[in-house]
Amino acid sequence: MTNKKIKVGIVGGTGYTGVELLRLLAIHPHVELTSITSRGEAGMPVADMFPNLRGYVDLVFTDPASANLDACDVVFFATPHGVAMSQAEALLKADVKLIDLAADFRLQDTAVFEKWYKMPHGCPDILKNAVYGIPELYRQKIKTAQVIGNPGCYPTTVILGLAPLLEQGLIDFSAPIMADSKSGVSGAGRKAEVGTLFAEASDNMKAYGVAGHRHHPEIHAQLTQLAGGKLDLIFVPHLIPMIRGMLSTIYVKLTAKGNSTDLQALYEERYEQERFVDVLPPGSLPDTRSVRGSNNLRIALHKQADTGYLTLLVVQDNLVKGAAGQAVQNMNIMFGFDETTGLEVVPLLP
Amino acid sequence: MTNKKIKVGIVGGTGYTGVELLRLLAIHPHVELTSITSRGEAGMPVADMFPNLRGYVDLVFTDPASANLDACDVVFFATPHGVAMSQAEALLKADVKLIDLAADFRLQDTAVFEKWYKMPHGCPDILKNAVYGIPELYRQKIKTAQVIGNPGCYPTTVILGLAPLLEQGLIDFSAPIMADSKSGVSGAGRKAEVGTLFAEASDNMKAYGVAGHRHHPEIHAQLTQLAGGKLDLIFVPHLIPMIRGMLSTIYVKLTAKGNSTDLQALYEERYEQERFVDVLPPGSLPDTRSVRGSNNLRIALHKQADTGYLTLLVVQDNLVKGAAGQAVQNMNIMFGFDETTGLEVVPLLP
Amino acid sequence: MTNKKIKVGIVGGTGYTGVELLRLLAIHPHVELTSITSRGEAGMPVADMFPNLRGYVDLVFTDPASANLDACDVVFFATPHGVAMSQAEALLKADVKLIDLAADFRLQDTAVFEKWYKMPHGCPDILKNAVYGIPELYRQKIKTAQVIGNPGCYPTTVILGLAPLLEQGLIDFSAPIMADSKSGVSGAGRKAEVGTLFAEASDNMKAYGVAGHRHHPEIHAQLTQLAGGKLDLIFVPHLIPMIRGMLSTIYVKLTAKGNSTDLQALYEERYEQERFVDVLPPGSLPDTRSVRGSNNLRIALHKQADTGYLTLLVVQDNLVKGAAGQAVQNMNIMFGFDETTGLEVVPLLP
Amino acid sequence: MTNKKIKVGIVGGTGYTGVELLRLLAIHPHVELTSITSRGEAGMPVADMFPNLRGYVDLVFTDPASANLDACDVVFFATPHGVAMSQAEALLKADVKLIDLAADFRLQDTAVFEKWYKMPHGCPDILKNAVYGIPELYRQKIKTAQVIGNPGCYPTTVILGLAPLLEQGLIDFSAPIMADSKSGVSGAGRKAEVGTLFAEASDNMKAYGVAGHRHHPEIHAQLTQLAGGKLDLIFVPHLIPMIRGMLSTIYVKLTAKGNSTDLQALYEERYEQERFVDVLPPGSLPDTRSVRGSNNLRIALHKQADTGYLTLLVVQDNLVKGAAGQAVQNMNIMFGFDETTGLEVVPLLP
Repeated sequence: MTNKKIKVGIVGGTGYTGVELLRLLAIHPHVELTSITSRGEAGMPVADMFPNLRGYVDLVFTDPASANLDACDVVFFATPHGVAMSQAEALLKADVKLIDLAADFRLQDTAVFEKWYKMPHGCPDILKNAVYGIPELYRQKIKTAQVIGNPGCYPTTVILGLAPLLEQGLIDFSAPIMADSKSGVSGAGRKAEVGTLFAEASDNMKAYGVAGHRHHPEIHAQLTQLAGGKLDLIFVPHLIPMIRGMLSTIYVKLTAKGNSTDLQALYEERYEQERFVDVLPPGSLPDTRSVRGSNNLRIALHKQADTGYLTLLVVQDNLVKGAAGQAVQNMNIMFGFDETTGLEVVPLLP
Repeated sequence: MTNKKIKVGIVGGTGYTGVELLRLLAIHPHVELTSITSRGEAGMPVADMFPNLRGYVDLVFTDPASANLDACDVVFFATPHGVAMSQAEALLKADVKLIDLAADFRLQDTAVFEKWYKMPHGCPDILKNAVYGIPELYRQKIKTAQVIGNPGCYPTTVILGLAPLLEQGLIDFSAPIMADSKSGVSGAGRKAEVGTLFAEASDNMKAYGVAGHRHHPEIHAQLTQLAGGKLDLIFVPHLIPMIRGMLSTIYVKLTAKGNSTDLQALYEERYEQERFVDVLPPGSLPDTRSVRGSNNLRIALHKQADTGYLTLLVVQDNLVKGAAGQAVQNMNIMFGFDETTGLEVVPLLP
Repeated sequence: MTNKKIKVGIVGGTGYTGVELLRLLAIHPHVELTSITSRGEAGMPVADMFPNLRGYVDLVFTDPASANLDACDVVFFATPHGVAMSQAEALLKADVKLIDLAADFRLQDTAVFEKWYKMPHGCPDILKNAVYGIPELYRQKIKTAQVIGNPGCYPTTVILGLAPLLEQGLIDFSAPIMADSKSGVSGAGRKAEVGTLFAEASDNMKAYGVAGHRHHPEIHAQLTQLAGGKLDLIFVPHLIPMIRGMLSTIYVKLTAKGNSTDLQALYEERYEQERFVDVLPPGSLPDTRSVRGSNNLRIALHKQADTGYLTLLVVQDNLVKGAAGQAVQNMNIMFGFDETTGLEVVPLLP
Repeated sequence: MTNKKIKVGIVGGTGYTGVELLRLLAIHPHVELTSITSRGEAGMPVADMFPNLRGYVDLVFTDPASANLDACDVVFFATPHGVAMSQAEALLKADVKLIDLAADFRLQDTAVFEKWYKMPHGCPDILKNAVYGIPELYRQKIKTAQVIGNPGCYPTTVILGLAPLLEQGLIDFSAPIMADSKSGVSGAGRKAEVGTLFAEASDNMKAYGVAGHRHHPEIHAQLTQLAGGKLDLIFVPHLIPMIRGMLSTIYVKLTAKGNSTDLQALYEERYEQERFVDVLPPGSLPDTRSVRGSNNLRIALHKQADTGYLTLLVVQDNLVKGAAGQAVQNMNIMFGFDETTGLEVVPLLP
């Protein structure tokens, strides 16, 4: 394995994906963290905002203007939507690779992007060559990508949960695909808002975004592409009183062939070589804590014979495989490192 | 209103439905709590086990043998399955009414009962005359019932959530009804088990009972009866890290007529006179804490026009409308009290 | 008992003490809620902000300017510090009684007030006649008070915890009194702040205000008054990941007489007539949930013979006895109602 | 650094200290896990009980009788009190080192041991040579120890928090040392007990062990030894609704010299070379999550000038520095590995 160290920058590191990137990159053997920017917090030591990093990250937040990101090999954007696309052209000119953890490079259809994110897309040409960063589906393209649109947290669970079925054409699209997804509160980010205060969100749960959530078009576009055809999707996310963890319970109608296929074997084979996708034994009921802090995603299959439907249970840590961990996995692939480098973290239980 | 006081007994009051019954009955103006039994804890003051009751309930747990339940007007069974049916005959002979919070009188089909509860039914004749205790559906029968099978927590949400549609024949049964239900941990009871320890269940969630949960046949039987015909049901319960609260997210395919009906108006009209069923304004996203500690159940409707499906969000406190509160509501009806007596508790928020 | 109904107004009802006042007052038999003000939320139905109140409170937030508070019999201030004192004079002229849940009328020494609250006191003359609203200590004065300074949450636990010892002169002031207090997060209020987000405050705890907390001078002044002399106080509050609940663990050095006194008997006798102060049996370890949602405060005494120290454990619901419940208790006294009216709420457990 | 791999066994790995040892040892570069025993669970794959270990630990629980622990270089005991001392002699004969995470080798005074643990000590001669495993105090002895008594969780915080003061004689023992300690629920272990169920322990807190806790004599003995003289200790532990995390708030009376000493400088100097003890800047208020999952212990000092007292805030992860992490740290020292090997885990936040 190479001993090369790459220079890494992070734009907008004051949110949860930012601190999670730092947690993972701080001990990554091939990474030299060179700068982390924040307009609002310039001058503050990172470890003052995130005390878990004290002793591990010595960086100070710098103003974006003086961050010298051009000298990086890769820059992660842990920013609100719209920031990465405003800086992409300049960085690419400086031969810097770019991994965006927001939505700027997730949706190839700019009209859909503009509808859901209420802003015009700033660099459609770059978008065309951006790669949707799910390694288990697009590893070859990621190897040579300049720009990665790192997937949303919910989409990662639904897409990896359904990919084997879609690739084999085993879903009957006469019924909609239903994804009833549940997320811990960290998914809402580190913004100060009443709705996610402890005293509001604790001992409480609710559905949200039922009338439309930004991850709906993202999931829909990816599933459609894998299916090679039209399909309906009902996606209902829920806010659950836990810090980390995501569970998607997915219901699909199987085709006749799907009903007669050994789906367990199909999934095990499909993901056999994937370190971070774990197909559980038949009958499993994965709990989210079993992947807490790790880049693992786990899938369990439950056929409901009488109805011809399949129920899938997919769990991940929304901040790791659902965000920062997958971003690091993408970086490893882009730079030819072993894909698991820095990601062999044993989940924290209890 | 009457000033009559009835004598009330509780069998097996050491679990969460027991303490919840006590919380509600302790300040019920028409109730005199005369005895509460526990084989294991005989002699212990109730308030020693449940310190919230100190100053409100002076009873001591008594051995069932010496409880003199025959002198009660009504006895609640907050016991494991199988206990109520073993004592029903004797109590009925003594002219005592009986409200069972376990499953002994929920399933009219004894074969189904025996399959799921692994015991023969002890009193099928009494079962035949027992009433399934959802007041909003069976109020007239409850008035004259001797025996109430108090509904399960999950069934209450799904049945009340779907009743208006089923009564009007607006669900297309070519697709299964799907209930993705989420419950706080108190639903698992007060048994000492590793899986519901704080350090196991906190900051964690999971689906369970996917291969079959005892509430499936109960829900299925009730929905079938309301529908007057065959239907498929997929029911997946989930364990959520909160003490109280239940949310069922229900997905149904509408008939053509269902798609063209003003469902919001239908629901509002159907439940207009129901104090404890609250149809929320269009677009609502109910959170479970908004009913914490109260007997309220709230329903929100979300039509998903493109797909012809309707998503229902139904929340309740699993220990109140899902158990003890509904039982008290049934008692009120059986004895001619105002149905809301003792149940006008404002939910506790935050 | 009287059947009189009084007109009640609330200024600034958008925080947790506001919603808690509403929860209690909504079902208070002698209260007619006539107005609730909020500058920012005028026009919004109260139940839209606090969905637990839907079906119980029909009021709409009104602008303070149009609230016609002069027509009230009593006005509660659930506002930031400084608001009540700016409106007190006008209300008193209109013969309206005033209960302030902020700090404007808690500290008789205006220099201390100004040091800690960074504002001059606006009405020192009114302050002089204001009564510190702990009924168990100052019931007679409360009966005729025009203005109540409702105590802080922490002070309520420490003062009621120590009053019997101070009244009898049993504490040796050669050592400081130490109050190590722990509070649920609702004590920090309903402001949107990063530090009290679920993902920050959950599965976490910390001390705060060690260098000085505003409740220190309040506790110190009250203890000094009860002691009739000088004493030192060390007070360290802690933020605990729970919604409601407060526990003060208090350590005091006893005098020789204190060491030889039957303190359990002393406390039981002192509080025998107090419905809301519950002296627990010897050896008790009160948990905060045992008073959740209720106006009860519980005290347990633990003598540590070898050291000559006494450890007191005092628990309450910080939003009830620590705020809104005590305010309603004060109102009941001021208007001649039975002191427990509207406050006989059985604590919610689990 | 050596590339040597040592053979490691774990006796009794079904509790939280067991799974935590496995989490740390699974990726320790110098460790070969050879056996893990459990009488009750023999034959079960470890990863079936602890799903976070799936993919990291392939071991199966074996019966103690067939575990062949004699072939190990070191055996950890994550067992109830009394087990390690029953097997120590045999293991030592086989030249196996032993690290006990229970109390068998923590208390040199066997009379005290027998009083608190209700059993005679089985091997007082071995106990005499056992070393109390706090590396920051006893590193030299640990290097050559055969048997380590790994400290209790509470004692680690109090002892490391006070060591610099005691070493310099800066505490005035005319007042007792007071340790008001708070622990997450995982400290109570993985036993199925009602009191630590989620629905009991969540949204709740309480003091416990006020009349006497087993860690009191352990702390007292260690402090006395460091002080070289008699002192009084008041120790009150509290149960807090969080999984991991421990905070001890310690109050000590300073001597005149203590009051005039720059304690911040003293602590920083004392622990300057200690990777796992972090003296925070003046004014710090450490939160427990800042060390979650890591072996770090953090100390903040707050002088309270008026009173002559010092308040110390000490936080750690009770399962890591308070148990398994410290045990691994001891192992590293005993076998000549770099002391931080396998322990450079960045804390998980949020």
